[in-house]
Amino acid sequence: MNTFGQFLRLTTFGESHGPAIGGILDGMPPRIHVDKDKVDAMLARRRPGAGGACSSRKESDRIRILSGLTPDGFTLGTPIGFMIANQDARPSDYSDSAGLFRPNHADFTYQQKYGIAASSGGGRSSARETANWVAAGAIALSILNPEGISISAWISGIGPWKADDIYSGQSDRETIGRIAEEARSEGDSVGALVSCRIKGVPAGLGEPVADKLQSRLAAAMMSINAAKSFEYGLGREAAGAYGRETADIPVPDEDTTGGITFATNFSGGIQGGISNGEDIYFSVAFKPTPTLMQPMPTVDRKGRPATLLPRGRHDACVGLRAVPVVEAMASLVIADMLLASRLPLKAQCR
Amino acid sequence: MNTFGQFLRLTTFGESHGPAIGGILDGMPPRIHVDKDKVDAMLARRRPGAGGACSSRKESDRIRILSGLTPDGFTLGTPIGFMIANQDARPSDYSDSAGLFRPNHADFTYQQKYGIAASSGGGRSSARETANWVAAGAIALSILNPEGISISAWISGIGPWKADDIYSGQSDRETIGRIAEEARSEGDSVGALVSCRIKGVPAGLGEPVADKLQSRLAAAMMSINAAKSFEYGLGREAAGAYGRETADIPVPDEDTTGGITFATNFSGGIQGGISNGEDIYFSVAFKPTPTLMQPMPTVDRKGRPATLLPRGRHDACVGLRAVPVVEAMASLVIADMLLASRLPLKAQCR
Amino acid sequence: MNTFGQFLRLTTFGESHGPAIGGILDGMPPRIHVDKDKVDAMLARRRPGAGGACSSRKESDRIRILSGLTPDGFTLGTPIGFMIANQDARPSDYSDSAGLFRPNHADFTYQQKYGIAASSGGGRSSARETANWVAAGAIALSILNPEGISISAWISGIGPWKADDIYSGQSDRETIGRIAEEARSEGDSVGALVSCRIKGVPAGLGEPVADKLQSRLAAAMMSINAAKSFEYGLGREAAGAYGRETADIPVPDEDTTGGITFATNFSGGIQGGISNGEDIYFSVAFKPTPTLMQPMPTVDRKGRPATLLPRGRHDACVGLRAVPVVEAMASLVIADMLLASRLPLKAQCR
Amino acid sequence: MNTFGQFLRLTTFGESHGPAIGGILDGMPPRIHVDKDKVDAMLARRRPGAGGACSSRKESDRIRILSGLTPDGFTLGTPIGFMIANQDARPSDYSDSAGLFRPNHADFTYQQKYGIAASSGGGRSSARETANWVAAGAIALSILNPEGISISAWISGIGPWKADDIYSGQSDRETIGRIAEEARSEGDSVGALVSCRIKGVPAGLGEPVADKLQSRLAAAMMSINAAKSFEYGLGREAAGAYGRETADIPVPDEDTTGGITFATNFSGGIQGGISNGEDIYFSVAFKPTPTLMQPMPTVDRKGRPATLLPRGRHDACVGLRAVPVVEAMASLVIADMLLASRLPLKAQCR
Repeated sequence: MNTFGQFLRLTTFGESHGPAIGGILDGMPPRIHVDKDKVDAMLARRRPGAGGACSSRKESDRIRILSGLTPDGFTLGTPIGFMIANQDARPSDYSDSAGLFRPNHADFTYQQKYGIAASSGGGRSSARETANWVAAGAIALSILNPEGISISAWISGIGPWKADDIYSGQSDRETIGRIAEEARSEGDSVGALVSCRIKGVPAGLGEPVADKLQSRLAAAMMSINAAKSFEYGLGREAAGAYGRETADIPVPDEDTTGGITFATNFSGGIQGGISNGEDIYFSVAFKPTPTLMQPMPTVDRKGRPATLLPRGRHDACVGLRAVPVVEAMASLVIADMLLASRLPLKAQCR
Repeated sequence: MNTFGQFLRLTTFGESHGPAIGGILDGMPPRIHVDKDKVDAMLARRRPGAGGACSSRKESDRIRILSGLTPDGFTLGTPIGFMIANQDARPSDYSDSAGLFRPNHADFTYQQKYGIAASSGGGRSSARETANWVAAGAIALSILNPEGISISAWISGIGPWKADDIYSGQSDRETIGRIAEEARSEGDSVGALVSCRIKGVPAGLGEPVADKLQSRLAAAMMSINAAKSFEYGLGREAAGAYGRETADIPVPDEDTTGGITFATNFSGGIQGGISNGEDIYFSVAFKPTPTLMQPMPTVDRKGRPATLLPRGRHDACVGLRAVPVVEAMASLVIADMLLASRLPLKAQCR
Repeated sequence: MNTFGQFLRLTTFGESHGPAIGGILDGMPPRIHVDKDKVDAMLARRRPGAGGACSSRKESDRIRILSGLTPDGFTLGTPIGFMIANQDARPSDYSDSAGLFRPNHADFTYQQKYGIAASSGGGRSSARETANWVAAGAIALSILNPEGISISAWISGIGPWKADDIYSGQSDRETIGRIAEEARSEGDSVGALVSCRIKGVPAGLGEPVADKLQSRLAAAMMSINAAKSFEYGLGREAAGAYGRETADIPVPDEDTTGGITFATNFSGGIQGGISNGEDIYFSVAFKPTPTLMQPMPTVDRKGRPATLLPRGRHDACVGLRAVPVVEAMASLVIADMLLASRLPLKAQCR
Repeated sequence: MNTFGQFLRLTTFGESHGPAIGGILDGMPPRIHVDKDKVDAMLARRRPGAGGACSSRKESDRIRILSGLTPDGFTLGTPIGFMIANQDARPSDYSDSAGLFRPNHADFTYQQKYGIAASSGGGRSSARETANWVAAGAIALSILNPEGISISAWISGIGPWKADDIYSGQSDRETIGRIAEEARSEGDSVGALVSCRIKGVPAGLGEPVADKLQSRLAAAMMSINAAKSFEYGLGREAAGAYGRETADIPVPDEDTTGGITFATNFSGGIQGGISNGEDIYFSVAFKPTPTLMQPMPTVDRKGRPATLLPRGRHDACVGLRAVPVVEAMASLVIADMLLASRLPLKAQCR
C-alpha cells in the first residue's frame, strides 16, 4: 500500500525522523536521459523557504540514485533505487508530544490501525514523504518533456484571497506571503488552493472505466497530505451549470493529429476518461497546517485530557510547499498513462 | 483497466447496446448472506424515473447471479458472476449520429484511443455501465450493514439551487424536480451536487500513503460519468480556512473503542488517510447531461462540419440518477478497505 | 484471486454445477479479428472424448460472447465478457458424496478455508473451470497467430509409457488409448506427461526479475488441476548436467532480427527470464484423476470413517484433456508478455 | 516487474556492480519482532563459501534497515526499506567481456529487450539480486516462525549423484563437495537439485484458481537464476503413477484442527491449490553455472565471431548457494498467503 502507478510504479519507504527516506521507481523505459540536477532543483522547490511563513527546518535534500542509470545518466530499463537522507532530524523536538494525540494529525488513527507508534515525529504520515514523490515525479518528467508535455502548478488562493481566474497561471506572491506571514505570526496556519495546467498531452490517454484519467489524477492529488478537494474542468461549478452553455463544440483543425479541435474547454481536456488533446487543468484545496504554534487542548494515549505545547518546526503554509508535489504527482500519473497507451516515445535514444 | 478494488475486486464488461452487461465480484468472504431483492431495489433506484426530467428509456433491470452463492443466498467465497440484460436496446435510435462526434461525449477520444467504434450508442462509455457498479455495490453492502455501517447519498444542489447545509441529509424534491423539468422542457440539461454520509466506519480503515481512504473515495467518485469534483470534510472551503478554527480537538469518550471522540469533524472522518471513527462525508459535482434535445453543431469522423440532430432517450439530469451510484461506489471502497484491515467480520455465519 | 495476467487479464467465475461458467478477458487490443468458430473448435478439443478412457459427461461447450466485439468479429479494445452454459449438470449424481471428503480432492481444504460448501460437485475446484481458460486462450491466439507465433502441446507420456524424445512432437495415440482404457476398465486412473512447444516468439519477451518468462509459464501450468511438475529447456535433467556440455553457443545469423542464433537450445528459448528467439519448450506432469470408480475409504465432515462409493462421470485420464488447456494457458502468458513488451502488433487492422 | 507478492510485497533494485542493491518489503503487519542478526545469518549462508567449488568473490553482506522498525526491532506496519552495499565490486574484471555475448547468460536477451547495457557485469540479471530476496525472506520468517512454521532446504543431487530419497532431509556434504570441486578444477560447472520441506503450514492457505499455492511456489522458484524445473508432491513421477496407489486417504485425528489427517502425503501438502495441514515438499533443479573458467566461442554485439576468455570470480555450483534462496522465496510465498488468509497472527505483540 505504498505503491503508486501500474506501468510506472513508485514504491516508497521512510519515516520522517529515521536515517533516510527513499523509493524505487520501476517501469522507466530504457534509453531515457535523466538529469539529476533537475531532480535536485525540483526537490529544492519543495524545501521550506526562507520566508517567515515556512518551517525553519533545514532540508537541503539531494537525491542519491543507487541503480537503474548508466554513468552518463541514461535509464537501463531496470528499477531506479533512490535515497534522500534525513539530515536534520531532531527527534527530541517531538519527545514531549510523544504521549499525546496531536489534534488534526494521524496520531490517533495510526494508534487505532497499528497499535504501535514511531518513537517521535509523524512517522510515515509526515509530509516528509512527499520528497520521495517529488524526486520520482521529476524523474518521470524525463519521459514527458521530450514528448512536448509540460506541467505547471501555482498558488491560486490562500485564506481570504483567491485569484479572479484560478487557471490563468498568474499568482500574487506579495499577497500570498503577507497572508501566510500573518497567520504564522499569530501561531496560526492557513489553507491554500493550488491550480495546475498540463499542456501537450496527446489525445487518447486514460481508460474509459476503472482508470479514467481524472480518476487517477484525483487519487494522486488526494494522496497529498492535507488535500481536501479535487476538481477539473468545470469543477464544482458544474453542479450549477446548464448543458447548452458548457458544451465543447468540436471544430475542424487540420493542424492536429485527430483533425479537430474544440471551440471551448469546459471538459478540462478529458472526455469519457480519456484525454482529448486540449490542456488538462485542475485544482486542489489544502487545509491549514494542522500543527499550530500555540497550546492546544487534547488527550493522551490513555484518553486523559492534556495540553499540547508547541514544539518542533512547522510550516504555517503546507499548501505553499505543495506546488511541486502537485506537479510531481501529475507527472507520475501522466507518465504512467503514457506508458499504458503503448505510444512510441520520442525520448528513447537508440 | 475495468477492475476496481484490491481485496474486493469488481471487473465489468458490456456495451450499452449489446445483449447484456455484467461483472465478476471477486473477494467476497464466505458465509455472508446476500439478499437479491435488495440488489434489485438498489438497481431500481438508479433506473430512469417516471418524472419528466429523466430518460424515457425503460430499464427494468434485474440482476442474474450465475455463481458464488448457495441456493439460500450465502456466499461461497468464490467469485460472484452476474449479468444484467439490456432489454430495451434500440440501436436504430442512434444510427444517424454514428458518423458524428457528439459534443461533450467520448466519441472523439474513443476514436483517438481505439481507432474503432461500437456500431451504435456510447458503447463502453455509456452510463449504462453504472448499473454494474450499483449491483456490485449493493452486494458489498451485505458485508457492511451487519457491521453497523450505513451509506446514504442525496441531491444537495441542482443548477441555481443549493442546500444551505449540503451535509444535512435534507433534500428538496419539489425544487429539484422543477429545475430538472425546466431544463428538459427547453431541450437543455442541468448539473447537480450529490452529497454522501457514511456512518459507523470503525477507526483504522485506510492506508497512510498510497491508498489513503480519501484517495480511494476520490478515485471511485471521479470514475462516475460526468463527475467533475470531489471534496470531503472541509472540502474546497479548506483553502480559505485558518487552522485555529478548524482543529478537531480529541476529547475523552468511554463509549468508543479508542476511548476518545472529537469535538468537531472538520476532518470528515479521515485523518492521515485513515478513518477516525467519526462520520465520513463528502460531495461530488456532476456536469449537465452532455446530450441535448436540440440541434448541435459538430463535425463528422472526417472532421467536416455537421449538425447533430436530437435522437434517442436521455436524462436531463444525470446527477439525479447518480445518487445510488455514489452510494454503490462508496460501498465498494469501504468494503475493500474493511477486508484490507483484517478485522473480523460480524456478518460471517458459521 | 481469480484473475490471470497483467496486461491481458482473464477473470473467471463459475461453479461446476451452477447455470454457467464464464469470464472477462480485459486488455485485448482493438482491431484484432477473433474467429468464434476457432474458439469453439479449441473448446471441442477439451471436451470429453468418445473413447472409453474419458468421462461420459456431455459437454458440448459453445462460447457466448457478450461484449467487446463488433458484429463482424473485431475487438473494440473493451473487455470481452463471455459465458459457457453448464448444459449437462446433474447435481443428484453427487448427492451421496456431499457429506464425505473425497480422497485427493479439494473437499477438505475448501472446508478448512471457507467453512461452507457448494451443495454438490467440486464447485470451483472442478476441472470445468478450465473451459473458461481454453476459451480465453483461444481468443488470445488471435493476437499471437498473426505475429507468426504458434503453440502446440501433446501427450509425451502416460503411465508406464514415455516418448523417447518428449519434445519431438510425436505422440502414440494407440498406446495412449490402450493404457488409459486399461486403467478405466479396472476402475483406476493414470497420470500423463504433456509437452509443449511455442514457435515464433520474438526475442525480448519477459522480465528479468519478478516476471521471468519461465516463472509466468510455471505459474500458469501449475494452476492447471492435477499438474505436479513444470520443467523447461534442460528441465530436471539440468541437475545432472555439466556446463561445458550444455552451453548454447551464439553464432552469426543474418536472417534473424538480432543478427545471431544459437548452435543449441538447452536454454529452452529463454535466457535470464527473457525469450531469445529460439523455440520455447516445456513439459508438465499430471497426476492420475483423483476420482476412482471403486469404493474408497474416507471420512465424513465430522471426521467419522466412511466409504465413498463411485458415482458421477469422470475421466480416467485428466492429463489427456489437459492438452488444449496447456496450450491455452501458454497462449495467455505469451500474449500478456507480448502486450507488456510494447512491440507493435501486426494483427491490428486500421 | 520487480515486485513479488500481493499482501507482503517485495520490490527490489540494484545492479550487481553498482554501489548497492536493496528493496522495500511492504505489508509487514505491525508489532512483529525482527531479529536483524538472523537476517545477517541467512545472508551469510548465501555467501560464497570458502570451499573450492565456489566463487572467491567476497560478499560479507550485512543488511542496513532504513525504515519500518522501532529501535528495539518491532515492525511499525510501515514499509521496511533496506540496502546491502556492493562492497567488493570490481567492474574491471568484466571489462574485456563487455562487448561480447557470454554464452548461456542474459546478455543477448537484455540487448534485444532494452537496447542498452550496464557497463559491466550481469547488471540486473546477476545472481547478486538473490541477496535481496534472502534478506526479505529472512524478515518474513519473523511472521512464520512464531506460528510454528519452519522451512528447510538442502542439496539432494549434484551432477551424477542423487539422494535415494530426495525428501529425507539428508544431504552428503562430502560427495557434494567432491563433485563441485572436480568440476571447478576442470574449469567446468555442474548442476544441482535442491529439495525443500515446509512444516507447520495450517490448512486453508492458497487460492483455488489463479493463486494456487503450488502455482505461487512454482513462480517463486522459477524466478531463481538457473532454475529449470519445479515439482511438488508426486512431482514428475506423477505422469507414471496410477490413482489407486497414490490416493491420500483421510483418517480421523482428534489432535488436528480439522479433525482429520491423511494416511499418506502424495499430494505434497496441497489439494486443490490449498494447504491441507500436511508437510509441503518440493524440489527445484538448477542448471550448471553458465560462466566457465575456460575459453568459450561466442559473438560480439555486432554478431562477429569471438572468443570469451575466462575472467572474474564465479561459482562452479550455483545450485549450492541457491539453498537459502529457495528457503527465502518459500518464506515470502507462505507469508504472503498467510496474510491473505486473514488468520490472526500469534506473532503480534500488543
